[in-house]
Amino acid sequence: MQVVSTIKNLREITKKARRAGQTIGLVPTMGFLHDGHISLMRRARQENDVVVVSIFVNPTQFGPSEDLDAYPRNAVRDKALMVEEAVDVVFMPNVEQLYPDEFTTFVEVEGPMAQVLCGQSRPTHFRGVTTIVAKLFHLVAPDRAYFGQKDAQQVAVIQQMVRDLDFDLQVVICPTVRETDGLAMSSRNTYLSPRQRAEAVVLSKSLFEAREVIAGGERRAGAVAQGIKVRISEVPDAVIDYIAVVDARTLADLDTLTGEVLIAVAARFGGTRLIDNIRVAVSIHEGCSITGR
Amino acid sequence: MQVVSTIKNLREITKKARRAGQTIGLVPTMGFLHDGHISLMRRARQENDVVVVSIFVNPTQFGPSEDLDAYPRNAVRDKALMVEEAVDVVFMPNVEQLYPDEFTTFVEVEGPMAQVLCGQSRPTHFRGVTTIVAKLFHLVAPDRAYFGQKDAQQVAVIQQMVRDLDFDLQVVICPTVRETDGLAMSSRNTYLSPRQRAEAVVLSKSLFEAREVIAGGERRAGAVAQGIKVRISEVPDAVIDYIAVVDARTLADLDTLTGEVLIAVAARFGGTRLIDNIRVAVSIHEGCSITGR
Repeated sequence: MQVVSTIKNLREITKKARRAGQTIGLVPTMGFLHDGHISLMRRARQENDVVVVSIFVNPTQFGPSEDLDAYPRNAVRDKALMVEEAVDVVFMPNVEQLYPDEFTTFVEVEGPMAQVLCGQSRPTHFRGVTTIVAKLFHLVAPDRAYFGQKDAQQVAVIQQMVRDLDFDLQVVICPTVRETDGLAMSSRNTYLSPRQRAEAVVLSKSLFEAREVIAGGERRAGAVAQGIKVRISEVPDAVIDYIAVVDARTLADLDTLTGEVLIAVAARFGGTRLIDNIRVAVSIHEGCSITGR
Repeated sequence: MQVVSTIKNLREITKKARRAGQTIGLVPTMGFLHDGHISLMRRARQENDVVVVSIFVNPTQFGPSEDLDAYPRNAVRDKALMVEEAVDVVFMPNVEQLYPDEFTTFVEVEGPMAQVLCGQSRPTHFRGVTTIVAKLFHLVAPDRAYFGQKDAQQVAVIQQMVRDLDFDLQVVICPTVRETDGLAMSSRNTYLSPRQRAEAVVLSKSLFEAREVIAGGERRAGAVAQGIKVRISEVPDAVIDYIAVVDARTLADLDTLTGEVLIAVAARFGGTRLIDNIRVAVSIHEGCSITGR
């Protein structure tokens, strides 16, 4: 496994691979790797000759009052995990490599998709995400890039960017990986106290229950959201940020469930903001087939 | 010469070239080709195995009251000229190919560089330019892309975008090509009446005189700008938009000329807005060496 910290060294390696006709899979991460990241690496390993993982806590996707400085880091453990997963190249740049002093260019999905859901409480977040992802795409020139369904809005926004700007690569979305009790894996789960950790499972529980309700025939988005709200509100310390029942591709609000539906929630447990979601494929004419993850 | 109108066909050709190890030079244009464009094609022809020219009047770089619909077009003549110049591939898409209905992603150089000079009267212009250029870079994946120094601010903004977003290509800037009397070549020159055409030469004349004044020792930016203003004001129908004496790379205002200096002017002749500029390399300690173009 090669660990590189400079753009120059990264380009040398990826160019050599491309010239040799090798395919490249990119897994962009902020490190502090968990089983969700591992699942992305395994999928990338299966589908590509060369697997590149980037580890970079990207400052432009954090708001001024967010947890940039506190974000958990553990480079030694991350490297050991990546060796286990037969990763070929790890790109771990410092901030100055990617954002030199004169930096001033941003890639932004305008329109409502990036402004709803997490965009409401994190107005510059997705601009930071699309900018760093565009940079990584240019640096690595991957054939495929891997993201987790856990970050459903990020997935939708990146797919929109790839379509709109004609990036020549495939975005591969992998299912959310969960703890045994259902909590979606997240590096931010480490912020939780034992009590908050126990309470946080309400997010996935409420989503799974919503899936059952839809399987039972419910098609009113408002009723589905209300059921989730009631469920989460039973936990005294959970402060709901949003509950959204939307089109999975456009993130547009739905009145009646149809097609690929995204049900997404965000809530705070003390100072920790967690998100979770499921996707449900609803065929309004023939009942519903469910692909919740 | 292959003329393609779809993204799919363009990608097939450029991918085949890359797989064969060929270098690609891209000349992005809005068509209605003149000797300035030709000079870009010839330079691209010298330096690359495959020359791709795009002809696309990009709507996102025109303001609502600007000349998008009136912009001159002549595809038949353009094609004949490109055959003469041994261009390999011409990409002539329609608007729907590059901007489908759901399009919503923009690349923007924020900060002052895109807001000064032409950015003041054309506030969304450079966002449109960087967005379409990023798209063309992704579609063609050129080794080199060719632009004219005539559009000095466009050059500075595109170079900033390439640096900031880590595009893996070389931006090649070619000197402004001029008519015999000095008027910078522009597709918009066709808008001019014979009288306006005669008057418009004042732009280049004022710039060349400024170069002489600097060669004579003038180092005060304000004095250089004032000289240009007086000269252009002698033409009754010329309405000055701006006269700028700035750092050529950052477009930041200068008080005292030093380093690579850009002297840029914009003025209206009737309904036609024209721009021109020269670059002057000023070494404050050892006199000045001049590379005006």
